[in-house]
Amino acid sequence: MARLNLRCQVAACLPLLLFLRVFAESGKLLVVPQDGSIWLSMKVLVEKLAQRRHDVVVVMPENALLLQTSQHFTVKTHPVPYTQEQLNEIYGNIGVNTFNSLSFFEKSIQIHANISQVMTMMASACQHLLSDEELVTFLQDKKFDALLSDPVLPCGPILAEYLSLPTVYFLRGLPCAMYSLMNRRMMLKVKICFLKTHKIVFSHMQEFEAIVNKSGEHGIVVFSLGSMVSEIPEKNAMEIVEALGTIPQMVLWRYTGKAPPNLAENTKLFKWLPQNDLLGMFKAPMGSNEGICNAVPMVLMPFFGDQMDNAKRMESRGAGVVLNILEMTSKDISVALKTVIYNKKNIQHLSDLHLDRPIPPLDLAVHWVEFVMRHKGAPHLRPAAHDLKWIQYHSIDVIAFLLGVGLLELFISLKCCLYCCRKCCCRSGRMSKKSKSKSQ
Amino acid sequence: MARLNLRCQVAACLPLLLFLRVFAESGKLLVVPQDGSIWLSMKVLVEKLAQRRHDVVVVMPENALLLQTSQHFTVKTHPVPYTQEQLNEIYGNIGVNTFNSLSFFEKSIQIHANISQVMTMMASACQHLLSDEELVTFLQDKKFDALLSDPVLPCGPILAEYLSLPTVYFLRGLPCAMYSLMNRRMMLKVKICFLKTHKIVFSHMQEFEAIVNKSGEHGIVVFSLGSMVSEIPEKNAMEIVEALGTIPQMVLWRYTGKAPPNLAENTKLFKWLPQNDLLGMFKAPMGSNEGICNAVPMVLMPFFGDQMDNAKRMESRGAGVVLNILEMTSKDISVALKTVIYNKKNIQHLSDLHLDRPIPPLDLAVHWVEFVMRHKGAPHLRPAAHDLKWIQYHSIDVIAFLLGVGLLELFISLKCCLYCCRKCCCRSGRMSKKSKSKSQ
Repeated sequence: MARLNLRCQVAACLPLLLFLRVFAESGKLLVVPQDGSIWLSMKVLVEKLAQRRHDVVVVMPENALLLQTSQHFTVKTHPVPYTQEQLNEIYGNIGVNTFNSLSFFEKSIQIHANISQVMTMMASACQHLLSDEELVTFLQDKKFDALLSDPVLPCGPILAEYLSLPTVYFLRGLPCAMYSLMNRRMMLKVKICFLKTHKIVFSHMQEFEAIVNKSGEHGIVVFSLGSMVSEIPEKNAMEIVEALGTIPQMVLWRYTGKAPPNLAENTKLFKWLPQNDLLGMFKAPMGSNEGICNAVPMVLMPFFGDQMDNAKRMESRGAGVVLNILEMTSKDISVALKTVIYNKKNIQHLSDLHLDRPIPPLDLAVHWVEFVMRHKGAPHLRPAAHDLKWIQYHSIDVIAFLLGVGLLELFISLKCCLYCCRKCCCRSGRMSKKSKSKSQ
Repeated sequence: MARLNLRCQVAACLPLLLFLRVFAESGKLLVVPQDGSIWLSMKVLVEKLAQRRHDVVVVMPENALLLQTSQHFTVKTHPVPYTQEQLNEIYGNIGVNTFNSLSFFEKSIQIHANISQVMTMMASACQHLLSDEELVTFLQDKKFDALLSDPVLPCGPILAEYLSLPTVYFLRGLPCAMYSLMNRRMMLKVKICFLKTHKIVFSHMQEFEAIVNKSGEHGIVVFSLGSMVSEIPEKNAMEIVEALGTIPQMVLWRYTGKAPPNLAENTKLFKWLPQNDLLGMFKAPMGSNEGICNAVPMVLMPFFGDQMDNAKRMESRGAGVVLNILEMTSKDISVALKTVIYNKKNIQHLSDLHLDRPIPPLDLAVHWVEFVMRHKGAPHLRPAAHDLKWIQYHSIDVIAFLLGVGLLELFISLKCCLYCCRKCCCRSGRMSKKSKSKSQ
């Protein structure tokens, strides 16, 4: 084959190149994750990258809610100024306080205090990581190719800046203003942001197979209040249990508290469910044999954080029903469950659109992390808007200039008009005087 | 395998699903292309879609510059009010007039007249298509799934609106304002826009293999003035030929005019070159064995249209040298050629970034056209900004409201201050009067 011919077939041979690259290159990746549900999906990406022979080091606090070691990657822990028990109590309070019988104002203050506690705890973990000289020196000597982090806390970005590493961000969707704020104050060198607007589904479900197979034609309902809340007051639990007892499906519920006394036969409690990353949702799959692309309709009970936003988006597309977790009755739950279980058209359509993509999302995430590692960043993918001042971004300089020119023009025209008018008036004044004096 | 387990592995099985889909579904696609260089890359996509068993119908005028029938798809022609000779003359004038010795002002008027002629010709072709009742009825009866078009002329969009078809646009990059203009006046239902910011390279080069193999270690230089210009005045051609004679590479030049008398031995003229879609560029591949990912440095001589923009972008990234086609001397060309041939670092870097993608661009384009055909559109991928009025888009309503509130506040504060001041003044006035009268 002639050289020229070969040279022109680059596009066609790209998959081969990518395939070869798997065996040709392996890099070093530093991961600074965020504790909580976001870690559950980030972990899938980190494990996949480690399986592709990259040297992956994950830095995490010695006490955490969901951050855990794995056989797939190296973990470096750093000390924190709180015990595992203190941490569990702080997270536990969020669930319990949501259901107490305080006024709206008192409850708002209490929830704010809870969230502040969590943030203070995370910030102190971050401080302890950055002041751990031994760890930071180890990270420095390791000469990583890139850093993967969640930018909700500035720990990862600061470390990236200090170690001069290109950064890949993995987040659920940060408000633009907050991102831009971080970007300007802190001079972050962000390379790529993954907006995790789709959740990745887990597949290690073997231990639940027996129950699922027993559920028969009706299938199962999975009940979870998110990864951070696993226990609620007994009164509320009983309300929920009563509703769950009215449906023919088998119910799997992640619950670490005391079993409610009215627990129905179809409801089983578990300390942990693999779908835990599906925050604050009822998952109610139809037990039909519609195949692997079967969509899952939802009853959503948003708690806090971005759950309300997620829930409302699902509801607005007709793919779920949202309930107020504080005011719902067992009848509300029962009606909502039946509504979603027997009306799957919208969720099926959304599912079709969601799954119809040119490349699986995990492969895409792996590609872009490796891209940043290979090319030491991706400045050409960064919107040029990030380098503009806010005055430029909103075109205020242009508008002000045009407004200035317009006003100046108006001013000059007015002055000219006034001058002309005065001249005319004077002349006509003189003329009328003349004619007056003539007529006299 | 349990049902639940299957259900949860959707992401992993996506490639299989896509593979199965190739054989399961075939749709009907209507293509309304734009004559000129853009057709050369659109044709690659259209042929690929036809190969995937879709029923593809391309509508084109009976006389055209580059639009041609193909064995891969059905072509429907419609009559136009000009002959092939008239069309050739109009396009030929553009090249000849660029080099004439008129003043800048006269030349601008002439080029504007040329472009107007082309646009008038295209518009009349468009009118003839839309008023061809027999053809439009045929298209209506065919019940297509989607329409693929270039939106520079409104022919495709109007037809899509009339036939109520979801539309996929394929374009080089239309100014935003123009797009938004079309979008609001004409109520287009655009589904997906491909911004063709990367060119697709062709691969049918067999007839040139002998020449390329003969070129030896220096390799070849390909010279093309774009698909619309293939002939220039003899004086300018001789200037270029003189420069091309000074380099050791073999030169392939697409030229339909009379061969210049000073043609060097290393320069061969051809009526057609497959790289024709590389508008207004010198293509100067090094003849080395750097493999299929070999980047091609360029000397660029922009003519008209978006060529200046493209050329300046390449130059700003250090990947090419731009020459003024009207003022360049043979020495300028020679120096520029040697500069790019012996300085390939930047173009190599750009090429690496460009080729490093998760899926080949042609496959991606095929995926999204088929996506629109499968789901009858893709409204969820359309930016919500398109549904905003321009006042909303630029937040002028919000700014005006805030400004209004601010001004009202300022006015009220001022009035209050004035009122207070007056009260104080009056009192102090009375006081001073009183004290005066006392002292008297």
